[in-house]
Formats: sequence, C-alpha cells, structure tokens
Amino acid sequence: MKLDEIDRQPCSIARAMAQIGDTWSLLILREAFYGRTRFTDFTKYTGAQKTVVSDRLKRLVASGILERATYSEHPTRCGYELTAKGRDLAPVLLTLGKWGDTWADNGAGAPITVTHNCGHPADPSLVCGSCGQHLDVSDITPGLGPGYPKNRSDIFAE
Amino acid sequence: MKLDEIDRQPCSIARAMAQIGDTWSLLILREAFYGRTRFTDFTKYTGAQKTVVSDRLKRLVASGILERATYSEHPTRCGYELTAKGRDLAPVLLTLGKWGDTWADNGAGAPITVTHNCGHPADPSLVCGSCGQHLDVSDITPGLGPGYPKNRSDIFAE
Repeated sequence: MKLDEIDRQPCSIARAMAQIGDTWSLLILREAFYGRTRFTDFTKYTGAQKTVVSDRLKRLVASGILERATYSEHPTRCGYELTAKGRDLAPVLLTLGKWGDTWADNGAGAPITVTHNCGHPADPSLVCGSCGQHLDVSDITPGLGPGYPKNRSDIFAE
Repeated sequence: MKLDEIDRQPCSIARAMAQIGDTWSLLILREAFYGRTRFTDFTKYTGAQKTVVSDRLKRLVASGILERATYSEHPTRCGYELTAKGRDLAPVLLTLGKWGDTWADNGAGAPITVTHNCGHPADPSLVCGSCGQHLDVSDITPGLGPGYPKNRSDIFAE
C-alpha cells in the first residue's frame, strides 16, 4: 500500500493522517493556531521550503482543514484560516505537545507553556467522555464499529 | 530547514514528530497498541512496505518508543513492544482517532469503537489537568516556557 492510499484503511487514525498530511502540515497547523494566516509567516515560522508550504496549504484547503480568507482588500491579499474541522484538531496538537514536553524537552523544561483560563497550567489530560474518569489505555477495549467493512474482522491481535 | 532538523525548533510538537516519525510510524504504533509485536504483523496490518517498516521500527527503537523483546526462545525470535514512553503516546492516537471518527468516516460511522471500563464509549475528551474543565482552544494562552531559547521571543503572532 502506498501512503496516498492509507485513507482506504478502516481506521480513523490512518484516515485522519491522510487528511492532515505530514509533519510539515502539523507545523503549519501549529502556526494557524498561533493566529498566523499568511503564506510568508507559515514559511518563516515552520522553517519549511516555500514549495513545501505551498503544497501543504493546498492539501489542507482541499481537506477542508484550512480555508482561504481575504486579509487585505487594497491590494487583495489572501491568507489561510482554520475551519471548524481544523480547530477540532486542537486536541491532537495539544497531546503531541504535552508528550514532547515530557519526553523531548532535552532536560530544559517545556519551551512553550499553555495556561488555561482558570489561571493554572492547562496540562491537557484525556478523560472518558462518558464517566469523566482519567482515560488510561489499559482501561479501554477496541471493537468493530458501524463503519468497519462487513467482510473483514481481522484487525485485532489474537 | 530540513525535516530531520525540526527537533531544533523550540516546540514540543516539532520535537515529538521528530521522534515519532511519520504516518507509517503512527500506524506501526497503532498496531503496537493493538498488542502486535512481530515484524510480519506490522507489515501485514499497516500495509507498509517491508523496507518502510524496518526503517520505522529502527527509528522508534532509537527514540525509545519501542523496545526489542524476545517472544520465542527456540528459535530465538525478537519482536517490538511499547516502552512507557511509547504507551504515553496513547492520547495522541486516541485524539487522532476521534478526529477521524468525526471528520473522516465517509458517512458510515466509526470503523473502530473504543469502550471504556465504565461500560460506555470512551469518547476521549480533553480537560484542563488543573481544574478539570473541558479544554477549549479558545480558553488557553501560550507563553514562553523555561526551555525556550533566551535570545528569541518571536514565536507568537502579533
């Protein structure tokens, strides 16, 4: 299977990554969450080549994660803003960031802090949406959902 | 900047992706969370080429996310298991999966369900670790942390 075919997998992780793209796309989305909208800023702050930024922006717009928006009328200049679908990726970036704070801070502490409106560190934590308890991976069980192909049932390890 | 230089960025999202790798790595980790440990299973269930799986396993072991483990003594055969650092990636995969369930289910519903030990759908939800409230991206403020380079302060949009 090629990378551009992974959206065929009956797996929301694969399909999500098929729409999001790659690491450069995630860094562009990081900048979008910081409020940046301009091509030049995406290039400057992600460090990606212009051709890479151009390609990823096109893909993110095609996926409906970003949308083109006009930020100047005279002359007309367009930028890129997060859609609702794009803003809904915040938990992905926040959990990635928390993992990086924990496991990839080079011993220097978090480079970026995230403060919640409650006045304290946000410390993004996952809970079960049904009971509100801390969600530990050992307390969850995967199963086949309505969107799983009817002729397959081989996804889980024995 | 090249992709293999992104761990130089003062950003835990970039550093996390530098260690995790790419989409194929995430799919290998998905299989590891399903309990799979063998090279042949990683190849079969991710759909990736053997050379890709081999490369990504090496990287994930080098990053300390997976570790080699012996699963057969006669003959000696080794597999790959999640370390504590690897298991701590569960929130990243769960939030990616939830986003895919919401935005990439092709209208057919989630292919995979996740049930919590409480007996109900896990519905992985992010809360503030300090106050326990639902964590909305509009309610958080980024700031420079202890690990941010002292000679730079240009990361946030004006």
